[in-house]
Amino acid sequence: MTTRLEQQLAFLNEADKLKSVTRGTLLCDASRRENSAEHSWHLTLYALVLADQAGPDVDITRVMKMLVLHDLVEIDAGDNPIFGDYDPADMKLQEEAAAERIFGILPNELRDDLRTTWEEFEANESASAQFAKSLDRFQPPMQNLQSGGGSWVEYNVTEAQFITKVGSKIKKGAPGLWHFAQKKVSAWFAANR
Amino acid sequence: MTTRLEQQLAFLNEADKLKSVTRGTLLCDASRRENSAEHSWHLTLYALVLADQAGPDVDITRVMKMLVLHDLVEIDAGDNPIFGDYDPADMKLQEEAAAERIFGILPNELRDDLRTTWEEFEANESASAQFAKSLDRFQPPMQNLQSGGGSWVEYNVTEAQFITKVGSKIKKGAPGLWHFAQKKVSAWFAANR
Repeated sequence: MTTRLEQQLAFLNEADKLKSVTRGTLLCDASRRENSAEHSWHLTLYALVLADQAGPDVDITRVMKMLVLHDLVEIDAGDNPIFGDYDPADMKLQEEAAAERIFGILPNELRDDLRTTWEEFEANESASAQFAKSLDRFQPPMQNLQSGGGSWVEYNVTEAQFITKVGSKIKKGAPGLWHFAQKKVSAWFAANR
Repeated sequence: MTTRLEQQLAFLNEADKLKSVTRGTLLCDASRRENSAEHSWHLTLYALVLADQAGPDVDITRVMKMLVLHDLVEIDAGDNPIFGDYDPADMKLQEEAAAERIFGILPNELRDDLRTTWEEFEANESASAQFAKSLDRFQPPMQNLQSGGGSWVEYNVTEAQFITKVGSKIKKGAPGLWHFAQKKVSAWFAANR
């Protein structure tokens, strides 16, 4: 019989695979692409450090929990770079199937707790989810500004595309961060595109 | 004048360097060494998933915060594999200097908050710190069991050394995890050493 602790460990061992999922974003020093596990860590640190940018209804502990979990589905579904070519409906189906399998490794009540947290992040409706999602959109441009353009160069992105696909989502949950990012990103596009 | 948000971002950009600090532990699939950023993410997930192993005085939110921050000093001081040859007093000095520099990038009250959290982890006295430290000691052997021995093979470790350097620290903050690990690790040493 599999014990509870064996189920918990099987899940944690499975999660190790997120360290091998590669993202479109480069590290700040442009030495290599970032992986989704270290990205998730960095975002959790963003939540701690930028908590003063969250609105009054945001629960930072819940934000951290969402950010730790948010990319686990990429173990099966892979990372879809935001400026890449993918079908959002198909991606959603793949991620739902991944959530079913991966969270399903856990004991039932833990499975339900973690899956509900991930679903809340995906729905992007609660104040905490919106702030978490804004951080997830805010970190890559901050890295791109350090690495010489990163995914903006690779995908030949225009400032208008950036504002539509990224800026609008940063603004929704963290208007102060959008105000900060917009000026810096705009200056980068003016100088480089 | 540097704005508050610029200080926060300078710290988050500096933190990106933790993704390039290499540890002694291998990934579960033994494909490469783990870095300290993805290790920190994995530990935060361990805290979420293994919260039921914590004693009644443990604050899991505080544990998560400690684990997100605990290795930042390695940006300057590097990672010292537990079975490697290093001077603990010298390491402590290097890590204190690193904490002074790295947390010092932040606005003062955030610097104090994060540094105090890191100091609490290092002191290993509070129930939360002891649980966090136990997870930090519990994850590498779980990876070694998956990867074919990892650092135990590289450093030619005996079961007695493992129990002294690692086991005692897992047991202190998470006796249930030590009970679980001991049997599995002991079986590994019996079969492989």
